[in-house]
Amino acid sequence: MPIAIKADHINPFIHSTLDALETMAFTKAQIGKPFLKTDEDPRCDISGSIGLTGEAAGSVTVDFGRELACQIVSRMLGEPHSEIDATVRDGVGEIANMIAGGAKGEMQAKNLNFNIALPTVTLGRDLSHSHPPNVTCVVVPFTTDIGSFTIEVALKTG
Amino acid sequence: MPIAIKADHINPFIHSTLDALETMAFTKAQIGKPFLKTDEDPRCDISGSIGLTGEAAGSVTVDFGRELACQIVSRMLGEPHSEIDATVRDGVGEIANMIAGGAKGEMQAKNLNFNIALPTVTLGRDLSHSHPPNVTCVVVPFTTDIGSFTIEVALKTG
Repeated sequence: MPIAIKADHINPFIHSTLDALETMAFTKAQIGKPFLKTDEDPRCDISGSIGLTGEAAGSVTVDFGRELACQIVSRMLGEPHSEIDATVRDGVGEIANMIAGGAKGEMQAKNLNFNIALPTVTLGRDLSHSHPPNVTCVVVPFTTDIGSFTIEVALKTG
Repeated sequence: MPIAIKADHINPFIHSTLDALETMAFTKAQIGKPFLKTDEDPRCDISGSIGLTGEAAGSVTVDFGRELACQIVSRMLGEPHSEIDATVRDGVGEIANMIAGGAKGEMQAKNLNFNIALPTVTLGRDLSHSHPPNVTCVVVPFTTDIGSFTIEVALKTG
């Protein structure tokens, strides 16, 4: 039986998201109330998703609207990107990578080890994600001065 | 330096896709001509993506249109699903899982080892995927009696 997902499993992803936004995009984010994902929501336009294997198997996905993705990547690179192009896509993948990589470091210190895959960035309209029935997915909303976004941490531990 | 992606790295995913369709959905698929992904294409409505870690790190993604996803899952379960619901989403995740799991077995026999994460299924409109700049992505088209679909194998080896 997989053990229950605890705050210890989610907090590293919250910390690394705050760090990634602040160090890469000079943007402070505030955490909203995390909730268990029970349906298709949240919806988004562009997402960066990265697989996790090991003691905590699953995925972490960061979900943005088009405008916020452009603004975040503009801040990361110090140059304006007003539409989704290859650079914005790659930037969203880098953010997903930093979120997964930062969480991996914090989890290792707590003796929960996982490996991270490479990010897949998906662009479209009205995107929603779902995860296998035996996986717990926690959605964490964040707000910034330029808009809101979410992460989805889907894990099967033990 | 990552080594170049060879047919040896892609063929196991082609074999496991043919196997998954035939054993799970009683559907024979024909392989089209694989090509290197250089832009956003192909587009799709629903995809199942699964991360890979280890000697071959990356992801494998299977891309369907809505109608074909419904028909394939209807065949898998022996009951009609004419719209995308939770069952169809889970079915697409299971197909991604079988594709990755089957390829893992064949790759292990060739001494190239990787671990597979859990699938993330994404539904939306006009979806396209992209991968990090240092990753090679090969798109493989397949046709069946009820429609066409693609897989995207994105790998960084070595």
